[in-house]
Amino acid sequence: MKILVLNCGSSSLKYQLFDMENESVLAKGICEKIGMEGSFNKHEAAGEEVKTVVDLENHSVAVKFVLDALMNEKTGVIKNVSEISAVGHRVVHGGEDLYESVIIDEKVKKLIDQCSDLAPLHNPPNLIGINACEAIMPNTPQVAVFDTAFHHTMPKMAYLYALPYKYYQDYKVRKYGFHGTSHRYVAGRAAEILGKKPEDLKIITCHLGNGASICAVKGGKSVDTSMGFTPLEGLMMGTRSGDLDPAAVLYIMEKENLSPKETGNILNKQSGVLGVAGIGKSDFRDIENAVAEGVVNAGLSLEMFDYRVAKYVGEYAAAMNGVDAIVFTAGIGENSAARRTAICSYLEYLGLKVDGNKNNTRGKEIIFSTDDSAVKAIIIPTNEELVIARDTLELVKK
Amino acid sequence: MKILVLNCGSSSLKYQLFDMENESVLAKGICEKIGMEGSFNKHEAAGEEVKTVVDLENHSVAVKFVLDALMNEKTGVIKNVSEISAVGHRVVHGGEDLYESVIIDEKVKKLIDQCSDLAPLHNPPNLIGINACEAIMPNTPQVAVFDTAFHHTMPKMAYLYALPYKYYQDYKVRKYGFHGTSHRYVAGRAAEILGKKPEDLKIITCHLGNGASICAVKGGKSVDTSMGFTPLEGLMMGTRSGDLDPAAVLYIMEKENLSPKETGNILNKQSGVLGVAGIGKSDFRDIENAVAEGVVNAGLSLEMFDYRVAKYVGEYAAAMNGVDAIVFTAGIGENSAARRTAICSYLEYLGLKVDGNKNNTRGKEIIFSTDDSAVKAIIIPTNEELVIARDTLELVKK
Repeated sequence: MKILVLNCGSSSLKYQLFDMENESVLAKGICEKIGMEGSFNKHEAAGEEVKTVVDLENHSVAVKFVLDALMNEKTGVIKNVSEISAVGHRVVHGGEDLYESVIIDEKVKKLIDQCSDLAPLHNPPNLIGINACEAIMPNTPQVAVFDTAFHHTMPKMAYLYALPYKYYQDYKVRKYGFHGTSHRYVAGRAAEILGKKPEDLKIITCHLGNGASICAVKGGKSVDTSMGFTPLEGLMMGTRSGDLDPAAVLYIMEKENLSPKETGNILNKQSGVLGVAGIGKSDFRDIENAVAEGVVNAGLSLEMFDYRVAKYVGEYAAAMNGVDAIVFTAGIGENSAARRTAICSYLEYLGLKVDGNKNNTRGKEIIFSTDDSAVKAIIIPTNEELVIARDTLELVKK
Repeated sequence: MKILVLNCGSSSLKYQLFDMENESVLAKGICEKIGMEGSFNKHEAAGEEVKTVVDLENHSVAVKFVLDALMNEKTGVIKNVSEISAVGHRVVHGGEDLYESVIIDEKVKKLIDQCSDLAPLHNPPNLIGINACEAIMPNTPQVAVFDTAFHHTMPKMAYLYALPYKYYQDYKVRKYGFHGTSHRYVAGRAAEILGKKPEDLKIITCHLGNGASICAVKGGKSVDTSMGFTPLEGLMMGTRSGDLDPAAVLYIMEKENLSPKETGNILNKQSGVLGVAGIGKSDFRDIENAVAEGVVNAGLSLEMFDYRVAKYVGEYAAAMNGVDAIVFTAGIGENSAARRTAICSYLEYLGLKVDGNKNNTRGKEIIFSTDDSAVKAIIIPTNEELVIARDTLELVKK
């Protein structure tokens, strides 16, 4: 059975075609600059990558292009659209009502649309992608897999903010959490790697990419996570501030006469490592190079990042009254031995001991704590697309 | 040597007169509703309390009334103002420039005034109290002791927010921390009680009152604290929200068309336990009674409070790579065995074991962890006035 996984952004469309017999990726690629000048597709199949500059005026055109690429004589891996048994869509926000993967129908689309207010940058393009697929493959089941769903198990004391209760009742202002598909995947893999049942484990998963979040996974379930009502809360990120005194935000708004929208833009796009390091870049490789060149604030920004990750790990150890394993995933988590070393150096009190040799790796699944470490530290490359494909398979089988 | 300690609020004036020979309190009291109808003084000396309804039109009048009460035949403990060797003032915000207790001169007053922008509710009345004393006792040294000062030792990675750096440079937006005098006092006492040098200890001090903050004290120095740019950040409090997604604040502002000032008012005065419990009260005794009466959200608000305190303890254990002792102080910390029990129940993984019998107490200095507990839990009634008196004594002696 072949399953297509789609992740539609505002001007992009990422895809992977899985053969679920062996969970292999037959083809994958990305369309970028959809609806803009210079739109293009990068398509990879059988080890070969092809870049095509092509006018992709909207997501519907992009979906058609992708299906053609998949069936194309040169780059194709299937002969007919009907070979695709189902499409799994990444959807960012499921709100309180969509808390598990579902087959998409009109009611689901309506609910996704209702959550657009909570994720204005993400849910609308997700929905455009769904509609484009429905138009082209009207008889193929479409499944939605939500970034928020894994965090649905958080207890109310963890997801509620200490605000007047009416804001939760009237506007659904609460912590939702994101990166759920990633946290779920790596927590599940960690249990497999450790040879234990998820029910018996307390795991802290650190998804450290340009967006970053941490999750406390107790007995296989998310009980708390660092992102909140939006993906702004929590850790310091590439361009996002993460946690700070809300009164500081209000102070800056008054000083600079900023609207809520302008302020949100500053906190989401001009803050974090970008804002502190001051070299006009947010990629950690650039920041690490700047540190080597002696840029003081670049070093400071990394110290802050590491310190805040370590503090969240400590926080979630308390939330679960203990921790068995700490998992590192996503771009920085998988690839930066320096960041892992710095973060783990705060955590010796938990009985965590790092094996420097094992840690000296990139993007490889490995337990990098010592054999006698009381807490295990593990690198697990994340694979959200695979989780989406698996959920889609399971739902269409039913 | 006798030292008068003053704490001027916007419409109140608290005072204690110390005999520093033996650090005893000769008299203490409070003036309330200064500048309002129904102003009064409560004065306590030699075990007797006298309440006097009296027109206190401003702080200058109130200071004069206090001095009269101290010299009065009936309620007095001194014969002449000249017996007061110095006055110690609690000042909330010292900014970046006033980071230790100082003898007040024109330059200091100017700096305190400059910090009024950072603490508009506190520094102006503090300054009024100083000016009132100077006018009445022009030859008596005045000393300022700052709530922020103890946190001056935080490293930059702890006090900086992940915002565009210019906001720190232009507006001094950073974490300052408050309750410093209290954290400093109880951390010092904890070392004495444990019979160890402060340099050898990692202590987490939990100041849990209607305002609440936590501090990580490493080697006798504050290395991090939960209150930030203002006293809004950090723990859930009686009426303050503490930490939440800044984007949730912006969302509510847009939905309700609120100004920064109105929003700050909601976050500071209508949130926290008051906002969640929904019984129109923020006193923990009222909330605990409501729980007994079955008010669901009252129970929820306490669960949230406990959980968030425990998480911060975990966070600061990571910040210091370990913890030797956890101190509970202020109204709730000293008096609520239920809250201490609930908070400590999260922290067994640190090796903390509570002795239920020892914990069953109120306002008494006691180690309430078991003898074999790896981490010590201690109740220490705070005494900010004594610290102010001691600092004042030390400075005027020089």
